[in-house]
Parts: sequence; structure tokens; C-alpha cells
Amino acid sequence: MPGDVVKFRTVGIDVGGTNIKIAALWNGGGVISAESIPTRAERGPVDAAERILVTIRALLQREGIDPGGMHAVGMDCAGIVDPERNVVIDSPNLRSWENDPLAQRLADRLGVPVYLENDVNAMAYGEWRCGAGRGADHIVCLTLGTGVGGGLILDGRLYRGAHGAAGELGHTTLDLRGASCTCPNIGCLERHVGAAYIVERTLRHLQESAAPSRLRDLEPQDMAPRDLTLAADAGDPVAAAVLRETGELLGKGLVSFVNIFNPERIVVGGGITKAGDRLLEPARQIVRRHAMSLPASMVEIVPAELGDDAAVVGATLLALEQHPTRG
Amino acid sequence: MPGDVVKFRTVGIDVGGTNIKIAALWNGGGVISAESIPTRAERGPVDAAERILVTIRALLQREGIDPGGMHAVGMDCAGIVDPERNVVIDSPNLRSWENDPLAQRLADRLGVPVYLENDVNAMAYGEWRCGAGRGADHIVCLTLGTGVGGGLILDGRLYRGAHGAAGELGHTTLDLRGASCTCPNIGCLERHVGAAYIVERTLRHLQESAAPSRLRDLEPQDMAPRDLTLAADAGDPVAAAVLRETGELLGKGLVSFVNIFNPERIVVGGGITKAGDRLLEPARQIVRRHAMSLPASMVEIVPAELGDDAAVVGATLLALEQHPTRG
Repeated sequence: MPGDVVKFRTVGIDVGGTNIKIAALWNGGGVISAESIPTRAERGPVDAAERILVTIRALLQREGIDPGGMHAVGMDCAGIVDPERNVVIDSPNLRSWENDPLAQRLADRLGVPVYLENDVNAMAYGEWRCGAGRGADHIVCLTLGTGVGGGLILDGRLYRGAHGAAGELGHTTLDLRGASCTCPNIGCLERHVGAAYIVERTLRHLQESAAPSRLRDLEPQDMAPRDLTLAADAGDPVAAAVLRETGELLGKGLVSFVNIFNPERIVVGGGITKAGDRLLEPARQIVRRHAMSLPASMVEIVPAELGDDAAVVGATLLALEQHPTRG
Repeated sequence: MPGDVVKFRTVGIDVGGTNIKIAALWNGGGVISAESIPTRAERGPVDAAERILVTIRALLQREGIDPGGMHAVGMDCAGIVDPERNVVIDSPNLRSWENDPLAQRLADRLGVPVYLENDVNAMAYGEWRCGAGRGADHIVCLTLGTGVGGGLILDGRLYRGAHGAAGELGHTTLDLRGASCTCPNIGCLERHVGAAYIVERTLRHLQESAAPSRLRDLEPQDMAPRDLTLAADAGDPVAAAVLRETGELLGKGLVSFVNIFNPERIVVGGGITKAGDRLLEPARQIVRRHAMSLPASMVEIVPAELGDDAAVVGATLLALEQHPTRG
């Protein structure tokens, strides 16, 4: 009995550095409702497990979900996940959670299997099954935020690599003579289109240009990529120029991915994609001009569709795929 | 009856821009003997088919191979191969062969299926099944020559991409402010470690350095990467420096592939890999220093083992995989 034939409900857990989102979902991926609690990473995973369980139980009760009918629960977090041991093994934001059997602890208490997945892999899977990746078998997913993450759907399967560490698309070299990245490399894609570097470039534009700009009213430390989108929408020329330049730099990274993967679709997520075609159209133009002609002519470059829900949807569907029936 | 249980013999065809190699092979991949004929690409694929058939028939007769027991024949060439139509669709060296049903024509005359594959994909598959990639499920294969090609074994399968054009690892950006490549991109990996650019850098080293070097005796237009290996082996300091620098540039490309794929092994082939650790050890050092720590600590960077036979072996094994039993 495949999981998508009979409709049932379960929960998903998206562990971020600041907040943990707990959602009630249909087994087809639709989010019914969600709660958010603070992560408080420093208190460790045992404390978090208790608070997650309280929230899940309240959610199940509120939505009238039978815990016995959940089949499986999906959970995701940033970092490298060891799928064999179902634990996170390298996560800068959750250092004290590494190697902790959090998923197993939750599974024991809930009475259903809980599967852990890397957050960007989960996001890619969610966009593939329910979002902007639907219907394609070869998808490169990129998420632009403080960091630049990647997830790969190759030949109709999530690609995790030999040790669960694949997909670090933000840490591919774009400029071998460039500046140091937060990773051990230099001149990475993240070093060009990560949030801090977009702000850095904005400040440089403001300094070098005499154009009037509402961005000048912001304190540099308060500036975020979303301010660019708002300003550009209001006709701000500096904001529009920075977004165009960011899109071109993104495109230069995408050229490599098009030549490497020959994907059907590239799905770009993260806050700055609210800028839409101001960001993506310059990226598409660079890809059309600089990637190999056949794959460049075939690839679609599209914004993600599921927003903040993508990871929890993907983690849930991955869990149900591993455990489609109960028992 | 799996193809590797009962031993039988077949032939493989490796179509290069200059020569076509026709080999008699065991179904496990071992080359028994081989013949080489000129490609004469300008005469077109019908002419080539006739000459290939004559050579195959002579080879079968000489080796006492029953054409009825061959199961399938593998063939490879440079360019993008459409696996559905079993034709090459984009091949700069074989323009008049594009969309020609050469494989089907040979199959009709030989009475066995003939499968066409991209040459670097075939090489990667050959190294995976019979060479330096044995036993691993996640392999990045790179071949350094005039061009820099790539082949990907991901999750234990050859990855071709959505339209057979994946794996162009030589055409990933290493320097977004770099020089134009032969492809539409700029600053590609090939633009740094392709044969012509290695020679270009050698000439620059010779010009800038006063060190004695036997490379000074060569005419620039006659210089090839193999001269560097020979000179370095004889203690030439300029040759050793160029090889080390080439290895470091190669390593800077590999950093991206390690972060993207988290491979178990990177297999490097092509003439210049005769330089061995003079080339590969600097590459390994760069990867250990600049790639993400977990995948960097796990990946092996090794020279290819099958040399010029890799592609014909891989093409044959791919053909037999698609057609393991007769009829």
C-alpha cells in the first residue's frame, strides 16, 4: 500500500539555529498547521527533545491526529547527517548535538520511526516532490541566505554522497584569487552571493555612487538583502544595480552546475529570491551566454515555491519514503 | 544468467578524432587484442562503418570469436550522445557524424546490438568496473589532455544528466576574472590544466627564470606535457615547478568537486598523469587544505589505471550491461 494512496497525517520537525518548527502535514506533503519554539541550542538536545515532544503532543491533540497512524516522522537540521546512524555529525550551529541520538530518543517516546536529514537536502526533496522541482528528475537546488547551501536530485534520487556531505554548492570556487570564505576555501560562490557579501557590495556601491538611494537611510549593521528587494521595487537604482550584479555572480556559479549536472531545472530559494526576476533574469542571461550550449538551452532557472516549509515537507516525505507503512 | 558468470568474448569500438581502435575483449573487461585504423572523419560515418566492419571481421577471425556469441558491442566517441536514439548529437571532431545512425548500421550488419556512449563516460565506467575506481560507489573521473573531460559514477551508477551532457568538469569556473576558454565560459579548469595552457605556463616559467633547463632545447610548438614528466624525472627544476603548479591548480578544481560530490575517490587520467605524485601530491595537499574537512579527509585522489583502454573497456561493459544475454 503506497503512502500516497491512503491519506494520513504525521508531523515534521525542522531544527534551525534559532527556532524549531514543528508542523502537522498530510502524507502527500501539505502543511496543515505549524508551531515554532526557540531552539536554545546551548541547552543541548535532551532539553530540546522534551520541548519538542510537548509541542508535538499539543499539535496532535489540537489537530485530532492519532499518533498510532503517523507511520514516520521526518526531522531536518543544518550539518552533515550520517544516514546509517541517523545522527548529525558536523553542525557548526548545533555543536553539542553532534552524535546525539535525538531522532532515536524522539522515536522511542513517540512510538514511530524518526528520520533525520540535512536541511538543504530536505528542502531540495520538498521542492522536488511538492514545489518548483515537480516532474523533473535532474534538479540542482540552491538556497541563498547567510550561507549558500545546495541539494541535488540526480536521476530521480536525492544525492547525499559517500558520507552524507555532498551538495555544498556554495563552497565551489568562483575566484581562485579571491578572498577567504568561512569554509577553508577561497573565492567560494557563498563569498559572492551570501547575505553578508551582498550587503558588503551594497555599501561599496553606495560609497562609489552619488545616486540618491533610500538604502543610505539604513545603518550598515541593520542592512539585509530583503531591503534591496523593497528598495528596488520602489525604484531605487542602487538596489536594482546590486541585485542585477548579484544575479550575474549567481549565474557565474550556475554555469558550472549546468556544465557538471546538465540539470532540467535549477531551483533557487532563500530570502533574496523574493527579488524574483531582478535576481534570476541576469543569472539566466549569464548561463545562456557562458554554459555549454545544449544544457544551457534546456535548463530552467526558477524560484523555489515552498518557502520556509520546503525543509519540513521534504524531511517528512523522506521519512515516509523510508517507512511507507506502519510496523 | 549474469554476463560475468559465463565468460565470452565481444568487440568494442573507440572512435577518436584521429584513430578508431577496435578491440577484442572478455565480457569482464579484459582486452585480448586491438587494431587501430584512421578515423578519416571527413569521409563521414558510412565510409567509417565499412572500414570498421572489415577490421572487426578480421579480428573475430584471427581470435576465433563466434559473432553469434558476442551479446552486444560497445562503441564510444567524443561529444554528447543521445542514449534514447543511440546517436551522437554534438561532437566538434565528428560534425558530419552527428545524428547519423552509425551504431544501428553496425548492429544490422553484425547481427548484435551496438550501444554508443560518450568517451569520457565510457572511460569513467571502465575505471570504475576494472580500474582505479573498483569497489567505490561515488567516483569523480577527470581526464587531462588537450581538453579536460569528466565522468561521474554517483550512487553506483553512471550519471549522464538530463540530456546526456553532464560531466563537463573541465568547464567549471575557477577564475571568474580569467581568460576565455574554448567553450563559451571564462577561467575554466581546462583553461588552467589543459595541455596547451600547461605548455603556455612552461614557456612563461622558462622566460622568467634563469635556471638551466633541458626544456629550453625544445621548440615551443613541439613541447607537450610529457616532456615535463621526462625532464622532471631527469632532475629538471623548471619542469618540476611547472608540474607542482599544475597539480595545485588541478587541486583547486578538485576542491569544488569534493565539496559538491563527497566522492570516495577521484580518478585522474590522461597523458600528464604519467607524472604521478609530482602532479597528484600537490593536488591532494590543496584538497586537504581547502575542501570541507569531512569529505576532504575521506577522499582518495588516484591515477587512472587502464590508460588508453579505459574507454573501450567501459563502452563494452556498458553495452553488455544493457544487453547481458543474447536475443
